[in-house]
Amino acid sequence: MVTVEEAHQVIEQAIGTYAFPDQPAGLYDPARYFMGLGGKRIRPVMSLLSAGVFTSDLQPCIEPALAMEVFHNFTLVHDDIMDDAPLRRGAATVHTRWDINTAILSGDVLLIEAYQLLLKAPPEKLPAVLALFTQTAKEVCEGQQMDMDFEQMDVVDLDTYLTMIRLKTSVLLGCSMATGALCGGATEEEAQLLYTFGEQLGIAFQIMDDYLDAYPGEGGFGKKPGGDIERKKKTFLYIRALELSDEEAAKKLTELYASSQADKVERVLYIFNSLNIQQAATQKMEEHYKKAVNALNTLSEKGYDISVISEMGAAIMQRRH
Amino acid sequence: MVTVEEAHQVIEQAIGTYAFPDQPAGLYDPARYFMGLGGKRIRPVMSLLSAGVFTSDLQPCIEPALAMEVFHNFTLVHDDIMDDAPLRRGAATVHTRWDINTAILSGDVLLIEAYQLLLKAPPEKLPAVLALFTQTAKEVCEGQQMDMDFEQMDVVDLDTYLTMIRLKTSVLLGCSMATGALCGGATEEEAQLLYTFGEQLGIAFQIMDDYLDAYPGEGGFGKKPGGDIERKKKTFLYIRALELSDEEAAKKLTELYASSQADKVERVLYIFNSLNIQQAATQKMEEHYKKAVNALNTLSEKGYDISVISEMGAAIMQRRH
Repeated sequence: MVTVEEAHQVIEQAIGTYAFPDQPAGLYDPARYFMGLGGKRIRPVMSLLSAGVFTSDLQPCIEPALAMEVFHNFTLVHDDIMDDAPLRRGAATVHTRWDINTAILSGDVLLIEAYQLLLKAPPEKLPAVLALFTQTAKEVCEGQQMDMDFEQMDVVDLDTYLTMIRLKTSVLLGCSMATGALCGGATEEEAQLLYTFGEQLGIAFQIMDDYLDAYPGEGGFGKKPGGDIERKKKTFLYIRALELSDEEAAKKLTELYASSQADKVERVLYIFNSLNIQQAATQKMEEHYKKAVNALNTLSEKGYDISVISEMGAAIMQRRH
Repeated sequence: MVTVEEAHQVIEQAIGTYAFPDQPAGLYDPARYFMGLGGKRIRPVMSLLSAGVFTSDLQPCIEPALAMEVFHNFTLVHDDIMDDAPLRRGAATVHTRWDINTAILSGDVLLIEAYQLLLKAPPEKLPAVLALFTQTAKEVCEGQQMDMDFEQMDVVDLDTYLTMIRLKTSVLLGCSMATGALCGGATEEEAQLLYTFGEQLGIAFQIMDDYLDAYPGEGGFGKKPGGDIERKKKTFLYIRALELSDEEAAKKLTELYASSQADKVERVLYIFNSLNIQQAATQKMEEHYKKAVNALNTLSEKGYDISVISEMGAAIMQRRH
């Protein structure tokens, strides 16, 4: 059994001692800079915790876990260009600090580095680990494309939205956990259970993210609600509200959402409340979280100690902004 | 023994029947479009010819060969953004026909597709094939970075220039040939000989490319010489000329090269001629071509029939613009 603290420590040390080549500096300095910006390292930590269910020797699992973080950083560097985002984790994004060309090429090399790290997986697990990772990497690109497509669309249906968040964010958490499990000695069936846990937890988390933006609640520390509404972001809440509205009401909500009027957030929230959107979101969230927990329980019934992962999942679901 | 025509046919068929997913169309349409623009398919063809030295069953070698072409296309899609190039093979580049974001993400997915194809390599060869490819992919990024760096630099030394062309273009030809060899059943030592052939031929070819731009010769079909000189491109000829000049002459050449005066090409060529740059380029080209041929001969001495590859190499070196 590996604790969360141990996993964090191992990962931070691995990132700290990971040596990118020195030259060409224009390629590797931005990669090093971005990896050093920090972040919660949730994917590699969950990967190591998954490994810890099956082994006490984490050594063969560290570089594959790190690969998940490096891949995640590749997606952020390129997504930041596409989203024209100036800041990431409070620091300048790569294309802002350098330029777009640098961000493209440094991002590319991070993707390749992820594969290089993954090649350190135990040889007998390599084909399964690489097949899963490659499939996941494609899905993450597909999710990003869907997300960009949504910005241009008037109507998005809820299932398509859930597919988008699953691909863009959840499959990588699933892949991270399955990779850790495989490298730790799990069978493919056992690894699949942790994949499902990560994937379903990721979806639940993403719905909660939409929910908490509109309803920060007691834990919101006075955070102003409705940032997504102001930015006209198509969230679970908005899409579900449109689905529950008749044609006329949907037209009005669409117009209101696209506007920038002063009392917009208030008025949108009023509509959300009248349609009981809070409950719809909570239900959907619980549904996916339950699927995650069920997968974990199946593993527990096989005699594995999954308590740390279970607690981590619960902690993530209790997070407040 | 596989003929060049057979290899071409197999590759064109594999590309023609290769099915990208349909959705999301915004991601895969540009990838499909770009792969369909054609090109000489030199890397996958050389990969299959290399496989043909060791086996008559090309089947397990086709998808890994295709991976080399898909990877090459990934680099072109991203390089075209960086170079702000409107056209590729006479057609609109991806970022011109769609936009930069589309070109970034479709390029990313091509890189991942290359790995997916490579995973079809014979399982016992997978670790060697993936390690070589991943190392090569990093080197290609390093070469592209060096090439971009050179544009900002006043002075580039010849060894650094040769390293740049080796990384940016030659290592992928070497990797393509070694991958074909490995998948065809070669030992790692045998594959290494074909790697060296591809790598050294690639360097020789690149020097010849610089040479023929300034000296199109009889085969130039009346092509106007000096396009690189007009575009102020730091070529083998220019860098070597600077090295052979004293301080004052180098200063003059640098100023002339950076200018846009009407008789610039004529005057630069006059300087090249006075420094016997033609001979310097020819010598260097021959030196690398000889290294390529030597590697091939070692394979021939082991009893392998390398005649098709040898002829292909000679044909490439006899190419005229």
